Amino acid sequence: MALGQFITLEGGEGSGKSTQARLLEQRLRDNGLEVTMTREPGGSLFGEHLRNVLLDSKTPEHSALSEALLFYAARADHLENKIRPALAAGRWVVCDRFSDSTRAYQGYAGALQLEAIDTMDQLVVAPTFPDLTVIIDIDPAIGMARADQRRAERDGSNTTRRDRFEGRDRTFHDALRQGFLTIAANNPGRCVVIDGSRDADSIGAQIWQVVATRLLQEAGT
Amino acid sequence: MALGQFITLEGGEGSGKSTQARLLEQRLRDNGLEVTMTREPGGSLFGEHLRNVLLDSKTPEHSALSEALLFYAARADHLENKIRPALAAGRWVVCDRFSDSTRAYQGYAGALQLEAIDTMDQLVVAPTFPDLTVIIDIDPAIGMARADQRRAERDGSNTTRRDRFEGRDRTFHDALRQGFLTIAANNPGRCVVIDGSRDADSIGAQIWQVVATRLLQEAGT
Repeated sequence: MALGQFITLEGGEGSGKSTQARLLEQRLRDNGLEVTMTREPGGSLFGEHLRNVLLDSKTPEHSALSEALLFYAARADHLENKIRPALAAGRWVVCDRFSDSTRAYQGYAGALQLEAIDTMDQLVVAPTFPDLTVIIDIDPAIGMARADQRRAERDGSNTTRRDRFEGRDRTFHDALRQGFLTIAANNPGRCVVIDGSRDADSIGAQIWQVVATRLLQEAGT
Repeated sequence: MALGQFITLEGGEGSGKSTQARLLEQRLRDNGLEVTMTREPGGSLFGEHLRNVLLDSKTPEHSALSEALLFYAARADHLENKIRPALAAGRWVVCDRFSDSTRAYQGYAGALQLEAIDTMDQLVVAPTFPDLTVIIDIDPAIGMARADQRRAERDGSNTTRRDRFEGRDRTFHDALRQGFLTIAANNPGRCVVIDGSRDADSIGAQIWQVVATRLLQEAGT
């Protein structure tokens, strides 16, 4: 049996990550692979419990370091109770956001030192770093409009009910985009940047080509 | 103005920490000092929010590392928004539990590597380590009986409504006691162990003597 591979999808609001995660899951299953789909923050029972704390706009204000520690508390449980057991069983894991999101949101677009994130990655994530990270790049103006439209379809309103991150301003979302691109530039062996302005099927085909080239051939599947 | 000093009180369940923290606060005020009283987990708005997550018996099971990260998320906010500003303003800070509790509960009595706690202490607490830590040592059989009695007076029942930590077994509480004693042995310059089996006034007098000798004279008060 080929070893399971760990794939993460990253990007700003409205980049289409979640849609692409589902398309990728289906393609992998069509190729006869066992897939565990998951997301962050959340993913495990305790992780989802903390997700509610993290995204709730009624949660009291707190520092960037506090916030990152809370994300890593959820991540530690997610790794221990879901991701590592799945990989150990030979399953492929597709995760919608992972620690690059903490680095982009709290580090590059936030107030947290990157060294603090390095420390937490070593403490919590190591040695379970992703085999492949797909970063979906999108102009924040387009991404935020898409996210508003998605909420409108779901909630019947297009600007209310943004969560704590969606509600931030354009400067924040620009810094976020640059953060993800910097992460990709610093980790060329692990990260691939995909243009998120195209239609979902084209993006899906491009992601599948990367997965087929980088992982399926290596894994001997 | 003398610089503010940071004093933490530590010990197992029913050791009388909270009573002693209040007695110490009063003695410091009687000596003309400005005092900030606080506690962990909690202490700040966000910290108290996480305290509810940490102590609630309905919170989903999670790993020792997750738990410790959650405590440090609360601690980071507590330090930034309460402890450091108070010390910077020349106030004395008396804190009921601090990071030695994480080391004793999740480390010595739990499953977490002590190196992980060292890492988090450096990331979150440094350079604001306590000037003095008073460890109140008590036989767990006596401490647990006291804690049950305290709940009975408060809630009208003596064994229900224990929180997630109070409800653990004797082996856990024995390991906890040994953990606190080991911390004291490893940090003789900062820690003092006080016999918690005596009456509250005698313990209070002993703590006051330590504070007067170690901190008030140094601070030139």
